[in-house]
Amino acid sequence: MGGTDQVRGTRRSTAAANGGGVTRNLNSDTVINLDHGDPTMYESFWRKMGDKCTVVIKGHECLSYFSNIKNPCWFLEPKLEESIKSLHGAVGNAVTDGYSIVVGTGSSQLLQAVLYAVSCDQPNQISVVSPAPYYSSYPEIIDLVRSGLYKWGGDAHGFDKDEPFIELVTSPNNPNGVIRGSVVNRDGGILIHDLAYYWPQYTPITSSLDFDIMLFTASKCTGHAGSRIGWALVKDKEVAKKMIKFMEVNTIGVSKESQIRVAKILQVVADGCKRFGSPDGDNFFEFSKSLMSKRWEILRETVKKTRMFTLPKYPLQHCNYTGDVTQAHPAFAWIKCKEGIEDCEKVFRGQNILTRSGRRFGSDPGYVRVSMVSKEEDFDMFIERLSAIQSFNNGDGNGITNGNVNGNLD
Amino acid sequence: MGGTDQVRGTRRSTAAANGGGVTRNLNSDTVINLDHGDPTMYESFWRKMGDKCTVVIKGHECLSYFSNIKNPCWFLEPKLEESIKSLHGAVGNAVTDGYSIVVGTGSSQLLQAVLYAVSCDQPNQISVVSPAPYYSSYPEIIDLVRSGLYKWGGDAHGFDKDEPFIELVTSPNNPNGVIRGSVVNRDGGILIHDLAYYWPQYTPITSSLDFDIMLFTASKCTGHAGSRIGWALVKDKEVAKKMIKFMEVNTIGVSKESQIRVAKILQVVADGCKRFGSPDGDNFFEFSKSLMSKRWEILRETVKKTRMFTLPKYPLQHCNYTGDVTQAHPAFAWIKCKEGIEDCEKVFRGQNILTRSGRRFGSDPGYVRVSMVSKEEDFDMFIERLSAIQSFNNGDGNGITNGNVNGNLD
Repeated sequence: MGGTDQVRGTRRSTAAANGGGVTRNLNSDTVINLDHGDPTMYESFWRKMGDKCTVVIKGHECLSYFSNIKNPCWFLEPKLEESIKSLHGAVGNAVTDGYSIVVGTGSSQLLQAVLYAVSCDQPNQISVVSPAPYYSSYPEIIDLVRSGLYKWGGDAHGFDKDEPFIELVTSPNNPNGVIRGSVVNRDGGILIHDLAYYWPQYTPITSSLDFDIMLFTASKCTGHAGSRIGWALVKDKEVAKKMIKFMEVNTIGVSKESQIRVAKILQVVADGCKRFGSPDGDNFFEFSKSLMSKRWEILRETVKKTRMFTLPKYPLQHCNYTGDVTQAHPAFAWIKCKEGIEDCEKVFRGQNILTRSGRRFGSDPGYVRVSMVSKEEDFDMFIERLSAIQSFNNGDGNGITNGNVNGNLD
Repeated sequence: MGGTDQVRGTRRSTAAANGGGVTRNLNSDTVINLDHGDPTMYESFWRKMGDKCTVVIKGHECLSYFSNIKNPCWFLEPKLEESIKSLHGAVGNAVTDGYSIVVGTGSSQLLQAVLYAVSCDQPNQISVVSPAPYYSSYPEIIDLVRSGLYKWGGDAHGFDKDEPFIELVTSPNNPNGVIRGSVVNRDGGILIHDLAYYWPQYTPITSSLDFDIMLFTASKCTGHAGSRIGWALVKDKEVAKKMIKFMEVNTIGVSKESQIRVAKILQVVADGCKRFGSPDGDNFFEFSKSLMSKRWEILRETVKKTRMFTLPKYPLQHCNYTGDVTQAHPAFAWIKCKEGIEDCEKVFRGQNILTRSGRRFGSDPGYVRVSMVSKEEDFDMFIERLSAIQSFNNGDGNGITNGNVNGNLD
């Protein structure tokens, strides 16, 4: 985590401390923060949409705790429920028929609600695992208050205990964009599918998923991270009920203002995305996919030239949504330093670029995760500095810190 | 908990099953839900305020996770911070100078953030206590995920362990409206002051409080419960930092839309409340105090006539805000049945009035808590039915349930 503006204000005490690397152009001593995935890159699209997405809320509206008391999820705004169904229907990435929808304050809260729901009636504390590299916040979310219901069990590849378990299946995966299935290949496991990035701008949509528990978030779908709206599609009504109970106790529901606004945004996306190739330019996924694809092209070219790093390769697949054969353009680049460089994060820090070390994902410090969804100017500066790196022995990253904001955001 | 509309739709299978009581007028078989404290009574004030309180949010606004990265509480909207300070200044109920402000998704979440903050570095699990009758949701909030950091320790009056403890001091108290101090009168305790009801419409403001940790919520102050905005005033910067950490992990901050809207509402209240006695009628506390005071007058008269119940008495005190000598008009009535009736909730259920049993507050089932902040029509129906009760031996409450919504809302 760490905010762009503040970190931009951070100045290095020495002008260039790149530890012996050959650089062509350091450009500036401004720090670029690509450690977190603040999805501000879609702003121009939303600006262009003008009043279509504007919400107006009067002082006397949204007073009550309740949104719809006929729904077991009594704090879910009916319009949000509609637009979630409408969007999944238009994109074809997940089945909603027969599912309960539970809204949350972002998908992090919903993950905790699911953990509670599936563990609260178990006799013993249950291990929660995910294969490395896993989302860096999972261990912290799970162990924060040292729950007696569940505990972080680490890398799912190494989980061989003969006991019930919960496996977090993140697909596409954060940090590396890979499509995943369960790796603990035996009975007795509860799977939670974290599908935050299963949208057409990031990955080909190959099927309409129908897993038992699926988590989504507006943050990564449309870029409205400040609204803190996530939703879960839950097959088992009893699990959904327990999740709702968690939401009641944890925060007594979810902001109505955010729900109303995100309902409008998702509906605009759903309506617009039925018209792929429309000259109006109001197809959000067409816009965002084109942007991601361009950024990845530039990144791949630049990385190739540096001869310092490698990037994952993604298979060409048919996307049911766009109708094209395409590869993934993940929200994060999972960059590996060439052999012999142990601390990839340090190399980038030497260029005033904040990234997240592979170590944080239960993986190798020879990797870093870099946000691909930042503002354009940050991305451009990143590419400029990256292209300046041609050979590096060591980067010292002297004097740069993450400010007062630490690394919990996606 | 339980929503008014749905519960209103609940019909009793028998027309009047009041178990031998003498009733003059049952009026209707519609169920009135006064179990929870959904603060919808202020709607007419907000309606009257018109566009003064309207917020307009465009599609490209509030995209980022961050609100102010120069603030350790990076997800706090600067305008909300300003208006919180402005409101406490205008009312004189709490000191804000020198305090860190942490925003939360309602004050329930902030309570959990404080529990985490004060217990995460303790060597042993710490007991959390509160004197009965205590807010019925405390035990559930505290024990929900069976934290190893803290546990519900029950009624503070009975707490005599020689170990560190956390005491929740709710003042005015929910359910009984009493002004409280700590009851575990010894060192080694951390006090958390839950001041949700310390506003002029509910109680005389006798001083500007300056406790170490003070929790407030928009829900009870202005009636904007659907926005889920609470705030903590925290003296110790290190405690505030750990609370912020909890908020990061639990929900990655707080809805920006809600913050922006509540900022506007609180500022309108703060500006208006400087003009006590203004002919404009734009002083929210003048309006709400007058309303609460009328309701309590009607309730006291009605209760007196029934000869079935008693109500707490509150001392006359000088309110620094209004300048009057006044008594409390709490958000809940804590009603005691006359001797010999063991289950007060059942008596009310016999009249199709849902209340919350004293048992839920760690107290006597001879008591019930009844919301005084409902819509006018519900309050009027409640009074009508209450006045119909003249003598009761037993109420059976046959066929009425709380619907699919259970009782977690204050």
